[in-house]
Amino acid sequence: MKILQAQIMVSASKKESMETVERACEQAAREQASMLTLPEMFCCPYETSNFPVYAEEKGGPVWQGCADLARKYGIYLSAGSVPERDEKGLIYNTAYVFDPKGNQIACHRKMHLFDIDVKGGQSFRESDTLTPGDSVTVFDTEFGRMGICICYDFRFPELVRLMVLKGAKLIIVPAAFNMTTGPAHWEIMFRAQAMFNQCFAVGTAPACNLDDTYHSWGHTIAVSPWGSIISQMGQEKGCQLVEIDFSEADKVRQQLPLLNHRRTDLYSLEVK
Amino acid sequence: MKILQAQIMVSASKKESMETVERACEQAAREQASMLTLPEMFCCPYETSNFPVYAEEKGGPVWQGCADLARKYGIYLSAGSVPERDEKGLIYNTAYVFDPKGNQIACHRKMHLFDIDVKGGQSFRESDTLTPGDSVTVFDTEFGRMGICICYDFRFPELVRLMVLKGAKLIIVPAAFNMTTGPAHWEIMFRAQAMFNQCFAVGTAPACNLDDTYHSWGHTIAVSPWGSIISQMGQEKGCQLVEIDFSEADKVRQQLPLLNHRRTDLYSLEVK
Repeated sequence: MKILQAQIMVSASKKESMETVERACEQAAREQASMLTLPEMFCCPYETSNFPVYAEEKGGPVWQGCADLARKYGIYLSAGSVPERDEKGLIYNTAYVFDPKGNQIACHRKMHLFDIDVKGGQSFRESDTLTPGDSVTVFDTEFGRMGICICYDFRFPELVRLMVLKGAKLIIVPAAFNMTTGPAHWEIMFRAQAMFNQCFAVGTAPACNLDDTYHSWGHTIAVSPWGSIISQMGQEKGCQLVEIDFSEADKVRQQLPLLNHRRTDLYSLEVK
Repeated sequence: MKILQAQIMVSASKKESMETVERACEQAAREQASMLTLPEMFCCPYETSNFPVYAEEKGGPVWQGCADLARKYGIYLSAGSVPERDEKGLIYNTAYVFDPKGNQIACHRKMHLFDIDVKGGQSFRESDTLTPGDSVTVFDTEFGRMGICICYDFRFPELVRLMVLKGAKLIIVPAAFNMTTGPAHWEIMFRAQAMFNQCFAVGTAPACNLDDTYHSWGHTIAVSPWGSIISQMGQEKGCQLVEIDFSEADKVRQQLPLLNHRRTDLYSLEVK
């Protein structure tokens, strides 16, 4: 399968961001990609105070717009993530996935909120305005089973392993690392999670917008189950097309049977 | 604390290997290192058929020789690993650690045996002659708590996390990657485990001996709790001296509290 990853420039205007998404959908269809992936918070400049302002309920205009685009262009759409407001008024960082008929087939609420305070570097507290989700998310496509988590979630070996134990052979990660953690950890994290779990890892980030307060590291990336980089972008806006063969995960798992070699007689990792 | 890592050339003669180890102990004392680390199977050319031939019981000549050297030179000695024969005649890949008085303070038997069959690459089956160990190993020094595991063990996020949850801030890994997995995975694995777990990771490998059937990748490495390489060697024999400040792990854990952000309400990782 081909996946088009869209490293879009997020606009302060939802309408403008959705127009950018439609152009990426057109490109995906033109390049015969089966799936388009978008970045974390693709229609809300990444800032804690923005999340309540840009938040919509499930079924709101952005959700509906994405469902319509998936159907119109006949593609799977991993709609990055958006601020979601639930019926109680709580706000989540939520990743929806739509199938080519426009049906929502996955919904992951970021489980691990990003609160960081690096001396002389980045400070950020998602938990100021967001509520964390509480489930591990996998879903099926005709190509194979996939898992999805959001940015900081992907730093936790437990979560990635749990998705893989549920059968995921490809993990989609809408993300937005910054200029401190990006150069230090982004590439290593993707290569390592793919290598430890012998799965594809597909991370899509926003382009760097110097007008925003939060500067995205960009570097949209796709990694093979052997831990090799398939393709990686810089910080500029644009798209990258990657080709994924799910059978490659099976081959790697056969040659080096890490998942079978887990000492499940000695330790257990479980969803509670 | 200073750690001297000895990337020794393993000899077919135990006596010769032990002489090399003594020279490394002398160097450690001279350079005021508090600890010397040795590679996996430092006195037995790494080949499954060799393990039963070179195996000794705990307290045997190699064990005693290492205890004596630790005491003589007043250093902690992570005596890489050796083939150990137990009272039932079973053979393990075992890592002993001695304190500066020559007391054994840790004993880890490799928990995950290395069975691999890469097409056109490396094939190897440790389980042909070895029995796996069954415990997670941490131990205390005046510098802080350390964990120890052996080579392939370090590919399992569960084991490394469990050592860190038991309080380890530095993981010692006697290892011997090969010419297939070394270039692909060695550095990424050390950087990633250190980064995910915000601990030091110290991997010591044998030098590459082209006369052996198993060609070690070498590349003895030390990585910081931020995931940065402190120092890394090539494939030649020699030693590298690294300086470790345990408080660096505390600082990183304070700035980016990954270990506190684990969703222990949603998933559990436990020793059975």
